[in-house]
Amino acid sequence: MATHKIAVIGLGKITQDQHLPVIDKSDSFELAAVVSTRGLSHGGVPSYRTPAELYAARPDIGIVAVNTPPEVRHGLAREALLAGKDVLLEKPPAATLTELADLEATAAAKGRVLFATWHSRFNPAVEAARELLAAGVRSVKIEWREDVRKWHPGQDWVWAPGGFGVFDPGINALSIFTRILPFVPFVRTADLTYPANRQTPIAAQLVFGSTDPAAPALTADFDWREQGDEKWHMTIETADGRPARLFKGGCALSVGGTVVTEAPSEEYERIYAHFADLLAARRSDVDGAPLRLVADAMLVGKRVGTDAFEW
Amino acid sequence: MATHKIAVIGLGKITQDQHLPVIDKSDSFELAAVVSTRGLSHGGVPSYRTPAELYAARPDIGIVAVNTPPEVRHGLAREALLAGKDVLLEKPPAATLTELADLEATAAAKGRVLFATWHSRFNPAVEAARELLAAGVRSVKIEWREDVRKWHPGQDWVWAPGGFGVFDPGINALSIFTRILPFVPFVRTADLTYPANRQTPIAAQLVFGSTDPAAPALTADFDWREQGDEKWHMTIETADGRPARLFKGGCALSVGGTVVTEAPSEEYERIYAHFADLLAARRSDVDGAPLRLVADAMLVGKRVGTDAFEW
Repeated sequence: MATHKIAVIGLGKITQDQHLPVIDKSDSFELAAVVSTRGLSHGGVPSYRTPAELYAARPDIGIVAVNTPPEVRHGLAREALLAGKDVLLEKPPAATLTELADLEATAAAKGRVLFATWHSRFNPAVEAARELLAAGVRSVKIEWREDVRKWHPGQDWVWAPGGFGVFDPGINALSIFTRILPFVPFVRTADLTYPANRQTPIAAQLVFGSTDPAAPALTADFDWREQGDEKWHMTIETADGRPARLFKGGCALSVGGTVVTEAPSEEYERIYAHFADLLAARRSDVDGAPLRLVADAMLVGKRVGTDAFEW
Repeated sequence: MATHKIAVIGLGKITQDQHLPVIDKSDSFELAAVVSTRGLSHGGVPSYRTPAELYAARPDIGIVAVNTPPEVRHGLAREALLAGKDVLLEKPPAATLTELADLEATAAAKGRVLFATWHSRFNPAVEAARELLAAGVRSVKIEWREDVRKWHPGQDWVWAPGGFGVFDPGINALSIFTRILPFVPFVRTADLTYPANRQTPIAAQLVFGSTDPAAPALTADFDWREQGDEKWHMTIETADGRPARLFKGGCALSVGGTVVTEAPSEEYERIYAHFADLLAARRSDVDGAPLRLVADAMLVGKRVGTDAFEW
């Protein structure tokens, strides 16, 4: 298998925790450079302050991963595509749907591979759940509840306009939901709970319709006020009446009370393996469905106020 | 030219004011039936209570216009496409972006013509503005201000979740904006003003970025609190410095102070002429850009409160 030279743009926490260790041990990718406005580096590879410097200095690097905050992701990804690079995007792939549509169109126009990753989809029990539900679904009840103080301590950007609020973890659930269902779900109602002093929701209760004539019951409960352990699971009833449960964020699946799949996460190992396949096939993988559902929830949502939130 | 038998679903105000008079005088379309849950009819054609009754009774009618409120539009349009009908949609084409994406995919899968209309785009000066801006733009300042009490008297649905609020007229401006610009605009910031007792914004101030490297200044001011005459205009500066003005909702264009185009609206005459062309070519016309910009504004918007609104 070919080894692809790749540069990573943005050396924040997700890059340090996931991308760099996975690239370092990958047979398919070789870290050839990084871009860091703060001048950070990794493993002795060259570090550039801007993508333009990278592209000028290293025309031999044809692939970049864009792991910056979402509000600047579109500009950086567009610059990379126009420079002729293949691009991997962290989630969410853009700040808005118009930006994502533009990236998809630009990649197609330039003949580049664009991979909009949804890391939770790459957890080990997700494909098993998809196979289980292929024959139909009576109900899915999503509960994605965690403590924002544990997962985003002091990060005021999650509360700023465009910061997604509880949809930051919620979009992970939606990325699994849209992968495992054998039909298209639509947001019918969304109750969005906003702290009095914040611009993004701290909780969201969604009810979905679908294209399935059997009208399955589909709901989501996203909440950032959970205390203690996080709850990242979906309670499922299959069309033939079997109870199932996708839990541990997509790492485990039980059917009829018996755990049928459980394995360590290894999301990013699978992401880079899939990226290698996409590069070999010169094929893009851009699914806007999770981001679209969040935007739809904001479009049809009912806003409800709650107490001010302080760290 | 062939005369197409068409049925209209939903006999509300826009159907009565626009669709029926235009179809009645059209050489390309013949009103063959209507569907009205209230049992209304027009011009002596058969009236059915449900689309299913229409489709069973009149297999000779291959085309429907779906003019119902947006929250039921997706279900009716999907049913029509699955019944093998070509479909015209009033604006907005769906309540959510996921619904619109599903309709586009369904029409493609069934080989049907789907036309998502944006009536303001069919005003007589819009194409002239598009030609004027083809060489580039320095700035566009949209002002779309009207009195909600005049245009939606007592219609509480505009304030309900999913009711769009001031984006109901604002999306008309955005449909023109996305048509006349020679590049893609993105919502960068959106200040959304909500009455204390309502669920949709009464005003919105948008700032746009774009794919144009010249970074033109692009803003929109939507407001439902305008008193007296409505203001539906865009103040434009072309790339070569000429001031221009698209006004009267897209019916008139001035360049350098001189009116170069002005004509009666005739939006719906042009809509049905375009629909006849699409049917002849067996081609769909579905542009989600205006709805996407509204969803993007809700996604990145900053919510600001204002006084309660009472009729």
